This record gives sequence, structure tokens and C-alpha cells, in this order.
Amino acid sequence: MALLVVKFGGTSVGNIERIKNAASKVAEEVRRGHKVAVVVSAMAGVTDQLLGYCRGVTPHPNPRETDAIIATGEQVSAGLMALALEQRGLNARSWQGWQVPLKTDTAHNKARILDINPAMLRARLEQGEVAVLAGFQGMTEEGSITTLGRGGSDTSAVALAAAMGADRCDIYTDVDGVYTADPRIAAKASKLSKISYEEMLELASLGAKVLQTRSVEMALRFRMPVQVLSTFANEVGSDMPGTLVTDEDETMENNPVTGIAHSLGDAKITIADVVDKPGIAATIFGTLAKAGVNVGIIVQTGSKDGITTNMSCTVARSDLDRAVEALKAEQAAIGFTGILTDSSVVKVSLVGLGMRSRPGIAATMFKTLADKGINIQLIETSEINISVLIAEEYLELALRSLHTAFGLDSE
Amino acid sequence: MALLVVKFGGTSVGNIERIKNAASKVAEEVRRGHKVAVVVSAMAGVTDQLLGYCRGVTPHPNPRETDAIIATGEQVSAGLMALALEQRGLNARSWQGWQVPLKTDTAHNKARILDINPAMLRARLEQGEVAVLAGFQGMTEEGSITTLGRGGSDTSAVALAAAMGADRCDIYTDVDGVYTADPRIAAKASKLSKISYEEMLELASLGAKVLQTRSVEMALRFRMPVQVLSTFANEVGSDMPGTLVTDEDETMENNPVTGIAHSLGDAKITIADVVDKPGIAATIFGTLAKAGVNVGIIVQTGSKDGITTNMSCTVARSDLDRAVEALKAEQAAIGFTGILTDSSVVKVSLVGLGMRSRPGIAATMFKTLADKGINIQLIETSEINISVLIAEEYLELALRSLHTAFGLDSE
Repeated sequence: MALLVVKFGGTSVGNIERIKNAASKVAEEVRRGHKVAVVVSAMAGVTDQLLGYCRGVTPHPNPRETDAIIATGEQVSAGLMALALEQRGLNARSWQGWQVPLKTDTAHNKARILDINPAMLRARLEQGEVAVLAGFQGMTEEGSITTLGRGGSDTSAVALAAAMGADRCDIYTDVDGVYTADPRIAAKASKLSKISYEEMLELASLGAKVLQTRSVEMALRFRMPVQVLSTFANEVGSDMPGTLVTDEDETMENNPVTGIAHSLGDAKITIADVVDKPGIAATIFGTLAKAGVNVGIIVQTGSKDGITTNMSCTVARSDLDRAVEALKAEQAAIGFTGILTDSSVVKVSLVGLGMRSRPGIAATMFKTLADKGINIQLIETSEINISVLIAEEYLELALRSLHTAFGLDSE
Repeated sequence: MALLVVKFGGTSVGNIERIKNAASKVAEEVRRGHKVAVVVSAMAGVTDQLLGYCRGVTPHPNPRETDAIIATGEQVSAGLMALALEQRGLNARSWQGWQVPLKTDTAHNKARILDINPAMLRARLEQGEVAVLAGFQGMTEEGSITTLGRGGSDTSAVALAAAMGADRCDIYTDVDGVYTADPRIAAKASKLSKISYEEMLELASLGAKVLQTRSVEMALRFRMPVQVLSTFANEVGSDMPGTLVTDEDETMENNPVTGIAHSLGDAKITIADVVDKPGIAATIFGTLAKAGVNVGIIVQTGSKDGITTNMSCTVARSDLDRAVEALKAEQAAIGFTGILTDSSVVKVSLVGLGMRSRPGIAATMFKTLADKGINIQLIETSEINISVLIAEEYLELALRSLHTAFGLDSE
């Protein structure tokens, strides 16, 4: 008999029928003798609809009021889930963040969890109840409603599992696990039965959309096993139900590369003919930081003449206009001849714990891409990933070639 | 400078444009130097939509979960109202029932207010903020979300006004005041500039839909002046902005009848040839009470033979089937020959404080109806109202004739 936290995403509770389907998965876990706490997202589309209302009233809605408004999405789906569980003969009650309480800091719209008091929910579970927590939301010390930012319900679920000392956190979503690459692009991608916290964290932060990055950080911090499953395909209790994110073990290192992520969210900026003097990088990236622009990969091309250099970096596509504007405003102070931008780029990343002990991964990656005539624009590496920026039109070709080259193809 | 509680109903906040319009009325009151607390209903249609979700999950949804779900309607409109007020340059914050707190009993779906702590809201108003309260909802002592039943936001508003010691409670709705009769039926009906609490209470409980009965009871109990106005027509600060519900004064008694209400919600049951023995009424109405049926007017026709009698009463139309079933199940115990039912009836009621001191009102009413050939089926009187049950087809004729006979016609 285990203590499980089971989380359902927006599409898994997207309508009444799907809520009933999700409830039957919970009921099956209870029938098998487990104690279950459930965490739900808002029904798919509801959060956007509510945000649309807010922006209809005012272009820059107050974050505190926005939180009070959008938190209702999860309040509704939590109540409906409790009703669906009762309909199946279970004792079930829904709980808002403030009722637990789940305390957060005061950073409205992107609050961080400070503390979850597990006492009340644990007592309820001991009495045989299923506790349904509205995900994505919490309460400040002063009693204001906060939300945790996009995908925050994943974080709610892992944090609740950690606070309650759960045996596992199951995250039901619209895909049936974590794949070696996006299967819509790489047809030979296969589902991973296990992946380490560290690899999952890299994949999530490099563009894999299965789990929210912060929830994986939380899982890593508390060593809380997280299972990713599909509400629509995975059977409760089947032998290989999804992907388990867990502690690293030996079996994982058979292949140096565990998965390939890609991200279409970046744009490239090249600042041409910058005078190459000490402190110039600080000036440029200080300007961008002041404009609120986060910078990804940075590459400085060695100057031919020893006087000027080209400086390239990636920024989020949504920040591109703001970044260019900020740099142009400081053109005199920085000293450059022009700015080139490119939004038709994609970042492709190899991720694997095995990279740490296997040399030559980067060389194989670069050669594979070169053989297909794909030009590498920027490169970034960490201990367990190598990322390259390439032209977007080569995405499918690059992903499939690398998938084959690193022995990830199924069969 | 006054302290006002201003309440907007569902149609008054039915979409973003209307919320902005409502906010401009609040802004105008603030500009005139008043301190304002706002109470809002859910956007029109939202509560029914949420109830539809609940019933889609299970035919008899748990009342506690239903409350948590439907309370979100007001949470959203309160947040949007605060945003709209901020957009007009005001400091505004929305508050849920639990944040105030507004404490209720545990009768989910129809909770009664026990206590409102005005301290926090009053302090906010003192600091120049506009406080926006989500209507219709509260919290039990144990921290569960409750709702106050249909039209509960009116009650929230009057209760908040009483708790804060407000000077007046303004209720914006989709009609511009209280009329001498329903103006859709009696074209010559005129708007009352003032009406007493007692008369308004009778009108509301006898079918006038302008204010919820419980809110008028609350206004009467705390002698809290309530102004009914239209969000769409009434100008803030105009000389005759709506109808003021307030203490009785002399000017009100010029006319013995203040208004005429009607209700289409009743049905008539006649139990034929009941054996007229002591305790028979107790048996009959005990049977109906056990079936959960509320009985309105009761009339026992004097028996001709001294042995049997006919017993008539009104019940809510929605209870009719249940009432007949319950009586038939007890036919042997009660002893009657048959049950006649009639749903095509309407209750028409004259209401006026002046009735107390003017004899002959009933006689004039009965003669007016008789002159038009309208048969009176049942009669009920109280100190300040006379109600008659007539065939529904005579509604318009009866209303117009009585309106003229009692000098209520405009011009």
C-alpha cells in the first residue's frame, strides 16, 4: 500500500467525460489499496479564457487580481473531480491552496512555494478520503491568492508529494511518456521507461514540453520519483505504464545520449563590428539585462584585425524587438556598425548522463550535421548536454540524423 | 461624504463592457467624495453554466463541492471589477468571502450569514481603496466555502452595509426601480420613489422580483436604506435615481395601496369530501410537510352536511406532483374522495401600509374583480396585504383593473 499523488493536466480534465475517465483511474488506485491525493489543472482553455477577460478590461492587469481570477479555473476542476470521485463511491473533498494551506512568496503570477502543511490532508487520507487539491495556486502569508505560473500544477503536485512523503507522483498528461525525441518529428523515437532527474531537467529546460522545468527541479531536490503517463492510453497497473523520472542508475548509461530536445523559442542577434575593448561584453549584456531580456547562448567571434569583433547571442523570440531597441538606444556608448537578427533558427540539444564519461560525442554530433550540409551557428555545452543553433528549415533532418547516429532509433 | 455599499447584479456585469460601465458609476461616487465598497454577482449565465457542469458529473452533486465550484463565478467578476476600477485610476482590491471573513452556517447552497468582520474592509476604505467583495459566498467556521442561495448577492450587499455601518446600500439591477405593478403587464404602472421596508418585504415575498426577500428582511432588521437603480438607465447623482427602500413616513400613506404584486409560481390543490373531524387538517398538512412541500394559502370550505368538507391550498408548481403523490399514499388514513389540481392560477396581491387604517380595501378589490367577471378562488390577508387566487387567463385584466381602481395609474 503506497501513498500516491496523482496529477491530471488540462486536457486530461478538458470536459466532463474526461474528468470521469480521470476519476476512474484514481478509483482504480484506491481499489488497489493506495492512499491517493489528486492535483488538477484547469480544464483546457479556461485559463486562457480568463486571461482574455482580464486583458479585455485593461492591457496590463494587476497581477494580484489576475491571480484571484485565474485561480478559479483549478477551483472548478478540483470540485468537479471530487464530485466524479463521489459518484464512483469514494469519499472525496476538494481543497483550495488557502485551505491547505499551501504558502507561497508574493511574486504574483509566478509565485514560488515556500511551505505546504501536510497535516490536514494527511489526516483526511488516513480517514479514507481522497483529497483533491486545486493545482497552480497558493496563498501568501497575508492571505492573498497567488498562482505559480504556466504549468504550475506540475509543481504543485511534486511539492505536495514531497510534503506528504508520498511514494510517487504520477503525472497524467496528453502524451504517454518521455521520448528520445519528439515523435511527431522523429518517427523512430521511442519511449523511455526510465530517466534520471538530471537528464529530465535538461530536456525540460531545453524545450521538451512533457514536464514543467520547475517541477523537475523540485523532484530532483526532494528525490521524489515522478511517473509521466497518458490519461488516454496508459492503463493503471500495467507493466510499462509510462516514463519514471528517478535516481540515476547504472542501466541508464548504456547509451551516452538519452534524448534529443529542440526549441523553436529562440532568435539570434548578431552585433556587428563591435570595438573589442575590455568591458564591452559587460556593457552589451548589461544593456539587455536592464531591458529585462534574458540571454541564452553567447558567442564572441575572434576579431581578425584585433580591433573589432562580432558578438552573437540568443534571446527569446518574444523578447527580440525589445532587445534590438535597447541595443540601438545604446549604439553610441557600445560602438557597433549594425545589428543582424534571425528568428528562423532552432536549438537542437543532445542530453545524457553518459556524456560525462564518453569523449567524442560533440565530434560525432558536428560530423553528423556537417555530412547533411547543416551549418552550425552557435554552440553551447554543459556537463550533460550539447546544444547547437541551426537554421529552422533543417530541424527534421537534423533530429532524424542525430537520432540514428546516436543509436536511439527504435527496433 | 457618505459610506456606500454598491451592488451590481449578473446582467450589470454580464460582459466586459458592462463591467466597465459599472466601474464608471463607482468611480463617479468616489469622485463625489464617498467611500465605496462594491459587491458583485457572477456574470449573467455563469452560475447556471457551472451548475450544469456539476449535474453533468452526477445527478445529485454534493452541496459542499457545488458551493466551491459556483462561488468562482463571483470570484471572477469581483477580480474583473477591481481591474476595471484600477483602469479608471482608483485603488481597488477584490476580496473573497473567506478573506473578509464573512462567516455563515454550514447549510451549503443556502447558507445564512452569521457574522461579517468589517475591520479589514473598513481600514482599506479609510486608506482610500475601493473594496470589491465577491457576493453570494461566505465561509463556515471550519473553513469551507458556502453560498447563500439564489439572489444571495443582494443579501451579501445589505449585510455588508449593515456590518460596516454604511449610510446606504445601492443595488444596481436591470430595472430602474420598484413599480406599482409589473410595467410589462400594467402599462400605466409608475415607479415608486420611496417604499417602506415592510411593503417591500411583502412585495418581494409575493412575487415582485426586484429584490431578493432575504435581503429585504436584512434591510428591515438593520433599518438599512436600500436604493434600487438600473445600471443602464439611472445616472449617478440625478434627482430621482431609483426607488429608495426606507423607514415608513407619513407621505407614504396618501394611498392605501402602494403596489400590486403577482406570482405565477403557485398551483391549487383541492381535496374533495374530506371527513370533517378534529385533527384532519393536521393530518393533511402533516403529510405534505413530511413530503417537503411548503403550503401557501389554506382554505376550508364550510361543510353543508356537517360531515364532509372541501380543503383547498396552494403549493409551489414545482412541488405539485410530489404533493399529490404524498396525499394519495395517505388517502385511506385521511379519508377523501378525490384530488383536483389546477396549475393555471395566479396570485394577485395588493400591498400597502395604508391598509391598516383604511377599511374597505378588500371590498373594493372584490367588487372590482367581480365587475370584470373574474372569479376569486382563494383569499388570504395580512395586516398590509390582500392576496387572491384567480385563473391565470385573467392576470392582465385583473392587474390593470385593480391598478386603476386604487388610483395607481400614472397621470
